[in-house]
Amino acid sequence: MILEGIKVIDFSRVFAGPAATQLLGDLGADVIKIEARGGDETRHYGKPPSADHAKADSAPFNALNRNKRSIVIDLKSDSGRKVALQLVREADVVVHNFRPGVMERLGLGFDALKAINPALVYAEFTAYGDCGPLRDVGANDLALQAHSGLISITGAPGQDPVRCGTAVVDLHGSLALVVGILGALFHRTRTGTGQKVASSLLLSAAHLMSYFYTEYWEDGTERAPMGTANHLSVPNQAFPARDGQVVIIASTDPQWRRVSETLGDPRLKADRFATVLSRKANREVLVELISEITSSHSAQALVERLGAAKVTCSKVNSIGEAASCDQLAAIGGRLKLEGAHGIESVAPPVQFGENPAPPISPPPAAGADTRSILAEAGFAEAEIAALLREGAVDAC
Amino acid sequence: MILEGIKVIDFSRVFAGPAATQLLGDLGADVIKIEARGGDETRHYGKPPSADHAKADSAPFNALNRNKRSIVIDLKSDSGRKVALQLVREADVVVHNFRPGVMERLGLGFDALKAINPALVYAEFTAYGDCGPLRDVGANDLALQAHSGLISITGAPGQDPVRCGTAVVDLHGSLALVVGILGALFHRTRTGTGQKVASSLLLSAAHLMSYFYTEYWEDGTERAPMGTANHLSVPNQAFPARDGQVVIIASTDPQWRRVSETLGDPRLKADRFATVLSRKANREVLVELISEITSSHSAQALVERLGAAKVTCSKVNSIGEAASCDQLAAIGGRLKLEGAHGIESVAPPVQFGENPAPPISPPPAAGADTRSILAEAGFAEAEIAALLREGAVDAC
Repeated sequence: MILEGIKVIDFSRVFAGPAATQLLGDLGADVIKIEARGGDETRHYGKPPSADHAKADSAPFNALNRNKRSIVIDLKSDSGRKVALQLVREADVVVHNFRPGVMERLGLGFDALKAINPALVYAEFTAYGDCGPLRDVGANDLALQAHSGLISITGAPGQDPVRCGTAVVDLHGSLALVVGILGALFHRTRTGTGQKVASSLLLSAAHLMSYFYTEYWEDGTERAPMGTANHLSVPNQAFPARDGQVVIIASTDPQWRRVSETLGDPRLKADRFATVLSRKANREVLVELISEITSSHSAQALVERLGAAKVTCSKVNSIGEAASCDQLAAIGGRLKLEGAHGIESVAPPVQFGENPAPPISPPPAAGADTRSILAEAGFAEAEIAALLREGAVDAC
Repeated sequence: MILEGIKVIDFSRVFAGPAATQLLGDLGADVIKIEARGGDETRHYGKPPSADHAKADSAPFNALNRNKRSIVIDLKSDSGRKVALQLVREADVVVHNFRPGVMERLGLGFDALKAINPALVYAEFTAYGDCGPLRDVGANDLALQAHSGLISITGAPGQDPVRCGTAVVDLHGSLALVVGILGALFHRTRTGTGQKVASSLLLSAAHLMSYFYTEYWEDGTERAPMGTANHLSVPNQAFPARDGQVVIIASTDPQWRRVSETLGDPRLKADRFATVLSRKANREVLVELISEITSSHSAQALVERLGAAKVTCSKVNSIGEAASCDQLAAIGGRLKLEGAHGIESVAPPVQFGENPAPPISPPPAAGADTRSILAEAGFAEAEIAALLREGAVDAC
């Protein structure tokens, strides 16, 4: 396993941090999730407030917390912080996504942890970074979809823009953080020393928006929502089928010739549609013409005919159609978590040829592993009992 | 630098592959971009067809191709393939995003390259993976937004769904590929051997959709577009200001109490809005009430007042407002590419405390480094001249 023997102490909550540490666990790291009493708030997203929060397992929680063990620590207590420090002493990686300054106030800032563990990789995920005018502003995925301009280019033309339906900024940020952690671990093999790596919702969102910003910085262009269409080429959007919708894309002229030949209508061969620029100039009439042609076919037939001609296309699937698609299972993209009453989960986004995936354990209840984690860290049974009694840690 | 001394041979084109190798270059790797004559097709996205494609530099190309050198090789010629093999012999990493089977037909498949370089990390990025019923179907970012169900949850309620405005699947996939490459390089420091790592648009999109699939697999729930709103909590969407829009989020009850106190209208304190579940049950009336309150204030004033109360919120920015925001520059998120006539570019999505960023070189013209790359790889001047003459390579 890629990260065999690597121990991760995970102070993170909600989406981006837990998604990052889940991937580290998928790669074989030993991930210890530190939770406050009541557990990660994601556990009860959409659940009744009366539920037992420590055990509540919302779909978002289940999707992002496999391959971890859980310990509940009260970081506001002196004894709780001492437990956390003891865990960090033996760790390779610390991950947190508290607001700037919180870890420092807890005595768990980078400098303090580096002093007791110089080889530590300290991974910090914030909202807007740890300096600058927005340093202390709270944010989440939607806030950064709004701040970054992503919302401003998503939606139907001329109408109120909308959010991208999933938490793209959080999940993209989770991979950025893993890139930082793996880069720092690689660097440590050369130098023996750790370092701080930092990502943020802002850096993550800006990376997603990169070519729109570069264009704006070049000539002031600001794009606007175009429905399913795109400013770079035509066709490059959804078209109506008899029983749904199909996206058809031709980014280049050779790709367009394959589209026009496959759809087979002679009107598509007109000169005014022959080049990328002329198709963009005649966008409206071309989209109408293609729509007229596609709407008399089934989505299935369109995808089969266009696909066979090597045209880039796809049916517009519902969540259920997408999740059930044979292809995802065929490439190992759908994981069954053993012993978890049938919880299923999406695989890591990258696969390693020479490295078997580790066993997949289901998301833990909050504090499920408190006792064993403390025992491994060298606490005697009487110490563990005392910590539980005074409420510095909690178990279930 | 994290990847000092690491040589990357990059056969990839368009978005996901080049975004991945740009990040490797940002981390200090020596990235050699192999282009066909005319260059990466992204160079002329949106440019007139008469332009000199090898030099065309569209915003998407500029955004994703800094810190690389370029060599033009005709991989359809025997001599061209020999040049590529010679480059791979000395490399640490190969990256490609051809369709399944293309690299094998070129004699550049994993097994062939492993035979001449057992320590090689071979990173493959495909559309739907290298097996399964959709293996040979062409795809791009939009196709996977459609296939994955992302489009089906993006848009205004009751209307045709839309795409997420940026190439999220491509860019997310680029980070997944970098995770694979760094993981394999780390593993190589322990074992001395390389391996194949694989990601795809499908794995990338599925990772973005993970909690929607887990929910569907649990109980069959299929979400639908909700504009800027969200099924998990209320408020969690955009609200009208006097001069624009502001997103306001309360995922939990304590967060809601901060919203209702800051907005200050006693009607918000009603019992029917007190809990996550009751706010969801009374979504429509609550959204209308908050909208009534927010629409009489400026966006600026709302963000300042709510932000000071630690409410998660943001103005809905345009591309220009987002790209120009001081915060992005303050955290080092905006890079000026020296010598590139003012091209500016978004920084890597993660920052390393102990590792200075490498010098930033602008995107190269196609074939700008052909001669020097061949000379470094051991080709004599007469051999280089012969390769140029027969068209196996090209230079500019």
